[in-house]
Amino acid sequence: MSSATFDKADFTPDVLICVDQSGTIDRVISVADKDYQSVKQAAINNSTYIHISEGSYLLPGFTDLHIHAPQWSQAGLALDKPLNEWLNTYTFPLEAKFRDLAFAQRVYQSLVAELLANGTTTGLYFGSIHTEANLVLAKICASLGQRAFIGKVAMDNPDQTPEYYRDNDSKEALEETEKFVQKMIQLKQSSQAEITAVITPRFVPSCSDETLSGLGKLAQKYDLPIQSHCSESIWEDQYAKDRFNMHDAEVLDKFGLLTDKSIMAHGTQLSDSDLKLFHNKKTTIAHCPISNIYFGNSVTRVKKAHQQQVNVGLGTDISGGFSPSIYRNMQQAIMSSQILTDSGDRNARITAANAFYLATVGGAKALHVKTGLIKPGYQADFQIVKDQYFDISSNDPQEIFERLVYHTNKENIKQVYVSGKLVHSIGENDNGK
Amino acid sequence: MSSATFDKADFTPDVLICVDQSGTIDRVISVADKDYQSVKQAAINNSTYIHISEGSYLLPGFTDLHIHAPQWSQAGLALDKPLNEWLNTYTFPLEAKFRDLAFAQRVYQSLVAELLANGTTTGLYFGSIHTEANLVLAKICASLGQRAFIGKVAMDNPDQTPEYYRDNDSKEALEETEKFVQKMIQLKQSSQAEITAVITPRFVPSCSDETLSGLGKLAQKYDLPIQSHCSESIWEDQYAKDRFNMHDAEVLDKFGLLTDKSIMAHGTQLSDSDLKLFHNKKTTIAHCPISNIYFGNSVTRVKKAHQQQVNVGLGTDISGGFSPSIYRNMQQAIMSSQILTDSGDRNARITAANAFYLATVGGAKALHVKTGLIKPGYQADFQIVKDQYFDISSNDPQEIFERLVYHTNKENIKQVYVSGKLVHSIGENDNGK
Ligand SMILES: [Zn+2]
Ligand SMILES: [Zn+2]
Repeated sequence: MSSATFDKADFTPDVLICVDQSGTIDRVISVADKDYQSVKQAAINNSTYIHISEGSYLLPGFTDLHIHAPQWSQAGLALDKPLNEWLNTYTFPLEAKFRDLAFAQRVYQSLVAELLANGTTTGLYFGSIHTEANLVLAKICASLGQRAFIGKVAMDNPDQTPEYYRDNDSKEALEETEKFVQKMIQLKQSSQAEITAVITPRFVPSCSDETLSGLGKLAQKYDLPIQSHCSESIWEDQYAKDRFNMHDAEVLDKFGLLTDKSIMAHGTQLSDSDLKLFHNKKTTIAHCPISNIYFGNSVTRVKKAHQQQVNVGLGTDISGGFSPSIYRNMQQAIMSSQILTDSGDRNARITAANAFYLATVGGAKALHVKTGLIKPGYQADFQIVKDQYFDISSNDPQEIFERLVYHTNKENIKQVYVSGKLVHSIGENDNGK
Repeated sequence: MSSATFDKADFTPDVLICVDQSGTIDRVISVADKDYQSVKQAAINNSTYIHISEGSYLLPGFTDLHIHAPQWSQAGLALDKPLNEWLNTYTFPLEAKFRDLAFAQRVYQSLVAELLANGTTTGLYFGSIHTEANLVLAKICASLGQRAFIGKVAMDNPDQTPEYYRDNDSKEALEETEKFVQKMIQLKQSSQAEITAVITPRFVPSCSDETLSGLGKLAQKYDLPIQSHCSESIWEDQYAKDRFNMHDAEVLDKFGLLTDKSIMAHGTQLSDSDLKLFHNKKTTIAHCPISNIYFGNSVTRVKKAHQQQVNVGLGTDISGGFSPSIYRNMQQAIMSSQILTDSGDRNARITAANAFYLATVGGAKALHVKTGLIKPGYQADFQIVKDQYFDISSNDPQEIFERLVYHTNKENIKQVYVSGKLVHSIGENDNGK
């Protein structure tokens, strides 16, 4: 199953999906094709044939566009606290602990394994301010086989960051970022892993003008993706107006931080003109619907953004969002759109097919990777998912699709592949049958 | 862990919980008690000692106050459809199929096992209109060991029900209900199971005046619980005004259907005066937060109801809600209360402790069963839950509690007990260690 369009998921039974040595989908052969039997037999003969049993389905892996890696060990905690208390009492002290590389190793190993188990084949991560700990995360992604985009968080504004957890000044923020970028380039070469550095101002309030501007230039110099937060809350929106007399989106643009490789988290408060700016700059919104319930003050207008041709993907926002599952965030995206409808935006509702499109195609477009569809030329990023209610329910493809969207826990995700490589497996193994 | 108050969950490490032959908690002995060692040794000697290993916790079982049993096989389907289409195209045709007892057997077996696996030790069920199929459900609950409250759905208003799925007239609705009540009394006696019949008008719109009035009398005659829906949506609220020139709650009361054994689902649109009526009648609200997102038009005011001393419990509302998990509904109850806060009701927010209270104490109060707390005199309804992130996270009791509320899937619920009897078990068995 994969997206045919924004509005429709396709289900094609009985196809052969041929993956080449590089992990790219080479051919998709339908049962009616004259080559079907011979290709299948050849695969069986050389033991590369994998059969998916009845009641299980092959889906593209997901892209999670917003993960705060060092917040993993507090996922689900203190969400009844106001944002300020949540940041200062819980989040910043926790992130500061990642200067300890042994601690980083332990938490990051758990996180990346958990995300793979949940079907997330590509992750876009905020690390911490610590260059070395971020490299630990990169090495773990490389070794566990997840496609990863990782940023060293830059935050140097003494007004908005605690003394024990900030870059000392703009010079340090920029130098450490560049050092991290260069080490990532080396690590990519030496490991041949699919890992990329990302320019990462935490958000406008936590950065000085010099840092914002310098990061824009670094992104251009190295042609790198950029991630940050934009208009997450009423407070953040107002902050930009107070400091710059501009919208948050306009501030980011002014510093060269809105590009076709930018992914901005949340955008709950984006105005129509902000959406137009995102469209013009080809910048993506990382929609994090669970997190937004707690900290967003309102619901991101996904349908409106799509209509204005702004690309949207999904993010868990660990740990503003408590769940590592993109399935959970698809469910919440649908529910949150219904809340928008109830509050008067009559055309806001999105469907399961729309949410699935965001999790697959939207995420892939954001990062310019060829994933999210099951088509020749795309990377073989797959999850094999078992329909746990197959025995008692309808086998209409649309109904199966909705059941998978609504009921899949990590325990139903039997195998996960990134670029054709098995990176996670549980329970009965269907291989070779 | 269990609720100390509405606002606080208690965690007591290292206690012995002694359960007597009848499945009632006899003593809770702290490690400081002089009897601790001798009682523990005696239990080990006669092989009744069960040890809970590090990283796992004993919680009370949950009560699910609103389940449409025959809708189980469509959980998660067609939730993007308007209520009318959802009922007429999907739900009524599906419920009508339960005249087939073999089909009922298959679906109900799956449902009850699923609910137990999710930690739901007591269930309050809407069956279908079919007396025999409802008895099938009762027998399955008896045989799987779930404490169950089950209603034969009464619906005879030809304006609001389809010809292929209704009681032919008020006489049939009432006679079949009474027949079901009597058969349940017999079944309870013969099986010694904890099963009870419930008077169940589907909701005001689907019943004639005679049926509503007759059901009120039957409830009184047999001293039975009553369940229905009340003010679920703007449409339902308006319907009562149009037909009776009264609030939905007032209509139910007029027919004797609001008692201290009544559980009314949803109540999203209840006014302050309706809440006062609920308080006076000691009637419980079954809050179904996932379902309400799709069909409720707004959020039930849980905090307000609690402040007005109206009892509130939680329901999954399968399949208006897609998830069989009370954990999921606790999470959504917290999130939905935050949505209420964002919409201007500043004091609406509920905490994880509040949601847990609803799932345990609130549900038990509604049904007048002695469950939901771990105290002498209460039934031994337990779930043993594993904290899957124990290794990487804090072991502060409050933080463990929040992790369990936010992260527990059925796969982390290792054992479930109802009245001291093991009714569900997976994975490693800690017994006897
Ligand atoms: Zn974030
Ligand atoms: Zn209902």
